[in-house]
Amino acid sequence: MEESSSSSSSYKTAKVDVPLHSIGFEIDELTPQRVTGRLLVQEKTCQPFKVLHGGVSALIAESLASIGAHMASGFRRVAGIHLSINHLKGAELGDVVYAEAFPVNVGKTIQVWEVRLWKIDPANSQVKSMVSSSRVTLVANMPVPDNAKDAGDNLKKYAKL
Amino acid sequence: MEESSSSSSSYKTAKVDVPLHSIGFEIDELTPQRVTGRLLVQEKTCQPFKVLHGGVSALIAESLASIGAHMASGFRRVAGIHLSINHLKGAELGDVVYAEAFPVNVGKTIQVWEVRLWKIDPANSQVKSMVSSSRVTLVANMPVPDNAKDAGDNLKKYAKL
Amino acid sequence: MEESSSSSSSYKTAKVDVPLHSIGFEIDELTPQRVTGRLLVQEKTCQPFKVLHGGVSALIAESLASIGAHMASGFRRVAGIHLSINHLKGAELGDVVYAEAFPVNVGKTIQVWEVRLWKIDPANSQVKSMVSSSRVTLVANMPVPDNAKDAGDNLKKYAKL
Amino acid sequence: MEESSSSSSSYKTAKVDVPLHSIGFEIDELTPQRVTGRLLVQEKTCQPFKVLHGGVSALIAESLASIGAHMASGFRRVAGIHLSINHLKGAELGDVVYAEAFPVNVGKTIQVWEVRLWKIDPANSQVKSMVSSSRVTLVANMPVPDNAKDAGDNLKKYAKL
Repeated sequence: MEESSSSSSSYKTAKVDVPLHSIGFEIDELTPQRVTGRLLVQEKTCQPFKVLHGGVSALIAESLASIGAHMASGFRRVAGIHLSINHLKGAELGDVVYAEAFPVNVGKTIQVWEVRLWKIDPANSQVKSMVSSSRVTLVANMPVPDNAKDAGDNLKKYAKL
Repeated sequence: MEESSSSSSSYKTAKVDVPLHSIGFEIDELTPQRVTGRLLVQEKTCQPFKVLHGGVSALIAESLASIGAHMASGFRRVAGIHLSINHLKGAELGDVVYAEAFPVNVGKTIQVWEVRLWKIDPANSQVKSMVSSSRVTLVANMPVPDNAKDAGDNLKKYAKL
Repeated sequence: MEESSSSSSSYKTAKVDVPLHSIGFEIDELTPQRVTGRLLVQEKTCQPFKVLHGGVSALIAESLASIGAHMASGFRRVAGIHLSINHLKGAELGDVVYAEAFPVNVGKTIQVWEVRLWKIDPANSQVKSMVSSSRVTLVANMPVPDNAKDAGDNLKKYAKL
Repeated sequence: MEESSSSSSSYKTAKVDVPLHSIGFEIDELTPQRVTGRLLVQEKTCQPFKVLHGGVSALIAESLASIGAHMASGFRRVAGIHLSINHLKGAELGDVVYAEAFPVNVGKTIQVWEVRLWKIDPANSQVKSMVSSSRVTLVANMPVPDNAKDAGDNLKKYAKL
């Protein structure tokens, strides 16, 4: 019996990034050139004004960039050292937010990734509004510590290299 | 019967910021000049290398700054427009991370808040290491929308003004 | 008698942004959708390691974004409130650095502009390397003060609207 | 014959950072823990609204952080990889802007410096207003290239270690 696309996305996300899964995000593409996914905006990811919590957008950005940089570094250890995020438009309860991460620059020591979140205009499905735009700076050549030798195993399993 | 300090902090956090509560963060101080709290680093807030997920640090920063700016604006609507976070040191499973937010500048239109996360060195409780340092920029004079007139009620209840 | 393109670019830059002109930058395009120009890297814009000074890249980013936002706001007063710049690759003495600014989001209160600097690979003119990538956040609806009513006059003269 | 403090500051700045000197900035303290100086706001450092150009503030931040990190790294090569600056208050023609840089974190690979600019309230010399606050992230362990072996010589000469 085949799993639905959504439940397999959810399972994959749980294996690859626990906090990302716990907010309800589902990863779709997983390649060193592009990481994508989506989030249905629910109560648990809203701030008191009933719009997507900016910290949740930041968590998505940090996660997707780290996953992408991890693949692009050949599964060495990566560590985010800086995140800069511009919140541009609100996303409301019930909106689906799409996310896309891609590298701006992949150096040996430093990688920079861009992560964009957007939503589809309910009045016109051709119109996308950008919800936020982030830059994540990562150190990319760190040795993998002994107690985390298998940290990349799940990612390797699901990545399309 | 008295509630323990921790469970009342947890309850307060649940009322004031749902995503912040769901990661396990507990708010302590709540004033327009200072917002503080703490997080026990658990599996659910770690990245695959078993250290605190940078996106969780960013979520804490965005939350505490928004809560503080909301109070400092006299409970008008605030919206974070930019977050810049430097991740400085890792925090590991079982560490307690302390957070403190305070205003850098409170203008009529724009507020800027600093949020610092640190941990206590287990070898010497006198030594604090900074885990991250953030700057959050917020627009502070937005009208409160009709469907969120009560958005600040819980915060008003727990804030020390 | 016709001025050379370079000297007219230089003259235009002097009229529109004094510090930008003093580093040797020359503005080419001037529209609310795109501002471009170039800089020959000279001693006066290098740091001690003989590469383009990162602060000069930041000055270019802040300038082009401000000029663009000023046009896009309909010549109201704009003020940069945040700049985030990633320095990606060095540019060396004698390199020509190209710059392009374009809006990420033009809101009534807040505008966000992206500014990219790049250079041409001397070994292959088809290859461009990005030198830096910036995000500039600006407040866009400020009243023009009485003592600066003519602040936009030079820009209006040279802008293609 | 003794040089005035100002002209020796100016000379020192010219030797240590050419673009910083050319905007009129004068370095005072030069230690691995603190770099300070001042700028008289002149026409050549203003934007069209007659206030200090935000790009000039960014240049000062990038310069002072790089100089400080260069000393703190033991005169290895450093390179700024990210600058984040919040512009908080305007400084006007004739104002003197004071600058102070200090390390937030000095790691082997990555250093983070804070740089603050402020001015004295003309109505009350006890009141300082912060003009901008920056975070500069630098890679700190780069080998010095052969053609720049003497890049740190002037800094070594003037630094108080």
